[in-house]
Amino acid sequence: MNIVLLSGGSGARLWPISNEARSKQFLRLLKDENDNPMSMIQRVYKQIRETGYSDNIIISTCASQTESITMQLDDKVDLVVEPERRNTFPAIALTCAYLHYEKRVDKSQVVVILPVDPWAGIHYFHKLKDIEQALLNSKHNICLMGVHPTYPSEKYGYMIPNTNDLHLPIKRIQCFKEKPNQDQATKLILQGALWNCGVFAFRLGYIIEISNNYISASCYEDVLSQYNNLPKNSFDYEVIENESSICAVEYTGEWKDLGTWNTFTEQMSDFCTGNVVMDDTNVNTHAINELNLPLIVMGAKDMIIAATYNGILVSDKHQSSYMKPLVESVQGRPMYEECMWGDYRVLDYVEHVDGTKCLTKRLYVQKGKSISCHLHHHHSDVWTIISGLGEFTLDGQCKKVSVGDVLQIQANAKHTIRAINDLEIIEVQIGHLLTEDDVVYFD
Amino acid sequence: MNIVLLSGGSGARLWPISNEARSKQFLRLLKDENDNPMSMIQRVYKQIRETGYSDNIIISTCASQTESITMQLDDKVDLVVEPERRNTFPAIALTCAYLHYEKRVDKSQVVVILPVDPWAGIHYFHKLKDIEQALLNSKHNICLMGVHPTYPSEKYGYMIPNTNDLHLPIKRIQCFKEKPNQDQATKLILQGALWNCGVFAFRLGYIIEISNNYISASCYEDVLSQYNNLPKNSFDYEVIENESSICAVEYTGEWKDLGTWNTFTEQMSDFCTGNVVMDDTNVNTHAINELNLPLIVMGAKDMIIAATYNGILVSDKHQSSYMKPLVESVQGRPMYEECMWGDYRVLDYVEHVDGTKCLTKRLYVQKGKSISCHLHHHHSDVWTIISGLGEFTLDGQCKKVSVGDVLQIQANAKHTIRAINDLEIIEVQIGHLLTEDDVVYFD
Repeated sequence: MNIVLLSGGSGARLWPISNEARSKQFLRLLKDENDNPMSMIQRVYKQIRETGYSDNIIISTCASQTESITMQLDDKVDLVVEPERRNTFPAIALTCAYLHYEKRVDKSQVVVILPVDPWAGIHYFHKLKDIEQALLNSKHNICLMGVHPTYPSEKYGYMIPNTNDLHLPIKRIQCFKEKPNQDQATKLILQGALWNCGVFAFRLGYIIEISNNYISASCYEDVLSQYNNLPKNSFDYEVIENESSICAVEYTGEWKDLGTWNTFTEQMSDFCTGNVVMDDTNVNTHAINELNLPLIVMGAKDMIIAATYNGILVSDKHQSSYMKPLVESVQGRPMYEECMWGDYRVLDYVEHVDGTKCLTKRLYVQKGKSISCHLHHHHSDVWTIISGLGEFTLDGQCKKVSVGDVLQIQANAKHTIRAINDLEIIEVQIGHLLTEDDVVYFD
Repeated sequence: MNIVLLSGGSGARLWPISNEARSKQFLRLLKDENDNPMSMIQRVYKQIRETGYSDNIIISTCASQTESITMQLDDKVDLVVEPERRNTFPAIALTCAYLHYEKRVDKSQVVVILPVDPWAGIHYFHKLKDIEQALLNSKHNICLMGVHPTYPSEKYGYMIPNTNDLHLPIKRIQCFKEKPNQDQATKLILQGALWNCGVFAFRLGYIIEISNNYISASCYEDVLSQYNNLPKNSFDYEVIENESSICAVEYTGEWKDLGTWNTFTEQMSDFCTGNVVMDDTNVNTHAINELNLPLIVMGAKDMIIAATYNGILVSDKHQSSYMKPLVESVQGRPMYEECMWGDYRVLDYVEHVDGTKCLTKRLYVQKGKSISCHLHHHHSDVWTIISGLGEFTLDGQCKKVSVGDVLQIQANAKHTIRAINDLEIIEVQIGHLLTEDDVVYFD
């Protein structure tokens, strides 16, 4: 069996802790058995490995997430990186091409696609074996995992099995219903419908053939280079809606989609994280504060309060699932980012009437790591070292730097810094164009 | 008539927009008739002047507020500054000494004490004349303004008139009741009780005599130098509780104490201030955002959300009146302050394991103004000029500075800067002791 974890997501639904650069699966807000913080992707990857599958485990992702994945999963993870964002069908097609052409997996073998962020017990992962068997033992083209509904949710998609198959372990699926209202959901559950939890399996050759309707490929590079010919469409619309031979295997254990604040907060081990003071008049309210400011919460009921360098959310938990358009209206540059060398946070941004802009950041460079040698065409930097020791190189001249040193870097000057021990720097950028892509890297 | 405005307050009840350095009366969250922002003190001062009183108007205040008062009231305001904070009785006694010894006001003249932050119509200020007349025409020692209650509030003090005086314009007061419960308040209102709104009048000689029980003074300086002999007590406890000859004049127009979020938000002209996005599921919710981050509010009911450099408050409006102990638990250094030369805000603060601390601020120096010449013993500064032009002097050496210039100021180096036009500076302080009082000023 080949397991593919889909790691995507624009991060709007768990704003402001998630954003383009830090999707929800990377937030270390869950806990492992030793009470250490862990992220969704760390939890799911660990659970898959605990099932003992020794097969291929591939993570299908986009370029902006590769750093976070490599940092969080210390194994040598097998990544397939989309050359551009084009939705789930192209991403899955590319990963299948990788399995077939690079990993030499036979077209008859089964591929199981999993989201990277389900909250489930270990039994969920053991169930993947049943899905593989269901496909191998049947003539169906697709097998889905159906979760036994625990309440008439309006948020999920439902799959309706053939009436004759209700008591069979492998059920043929006759149709789907996306996000019904509560009445419809209640009726669907009485008819034996199951929640669609985004797990689907197929034989490798099945997707290779569908891809070949759009591109002509005889190796992995062919698929990569023709990636923009693949339809920008979800796997559900492109494949499942056009397929009549679909079956499902039922999973009855613990399962949750941690994609919204409502469900996510249920898994948080504490009501508050960070500098938060709550009085005893709050009810079912969670507060996350990543800012360097105190947060006081009083008399709040069923609310989520999250304050980060990206922004502040104060919302009724249920209402927060509708926040995507609001978040899109305020989305600016990332204010916090984890990088290969450490992280940065934006402290301040000012624009002046003459067009000069000024951005102030605090940078953290991990001991032994370097910020790659680079230059900016359109702004100068002032770095003040506020802790640690480093080796700073400016236009080829190298020197040791320590607390209190001030480094002035003009536009077009090549510069790099290596942390001899953990370094912290206040960076002041000044210029007329301060964008993250005004960077030219050198080896 | 002599009018004394009491400007005090520690600022806990409107946290986080108010703090020690910025009391609520200075917040420009109200609007004048032209829709320009104005503060409570500006509104009240303007209203008093509109009544046409040509008499003495004195503001009794403490040292930390003198800058804000001078900046906000562009007249040559008459200030009496307490040498230390000792509650309202000493503050009023000092102001009376100032009126008598410095302004040569006769002991028979009437002094009216007003809080600096009532929300009232102009009729409230005209009523002061009636209070003066009531005292001059009667033998009472104190005359209070009583506000006609509009509901059985549990937050106010009530004054209960003699039964025989209920329909007289000047009522003798038989007793007081502080913050009754709702049932008691309802009964008190039926008995003709009035709210105590903190306005009281007396003949100047009356307070001079009470002061003389504690100090021996023949000039204003005598009172100043013996200020710490005056009892640290409120005017209510020291004077009113011990006085049997008290009358009141009733005011029936608009009046509110803007001291809590609940009442304050009722006077705000908009539901949001700053970078705030609210959807249409919020009910009676106000949001103030002074941070450089977006704030999204959804599904909140009867809440106040305020985000400033001091901290973030998310509270049910009613519940927020109980926040004082919570605020005291998080109170740190001021994060934003208006100064004679401009203002500053704290962007970041880091403490390292070796005891080194780093504070990053953005300073704004108004055109023509200077930061006084000073030095710090325990920390160095790095200033990066991010906008404007200035004249910088370091240990007697003067130079012009402009955008992009970096100024390194070692501990014990005397420095000053003058803004040729509006200047903005990013300041990075590094040292083992970073307190606001590590400053030595020079002329």
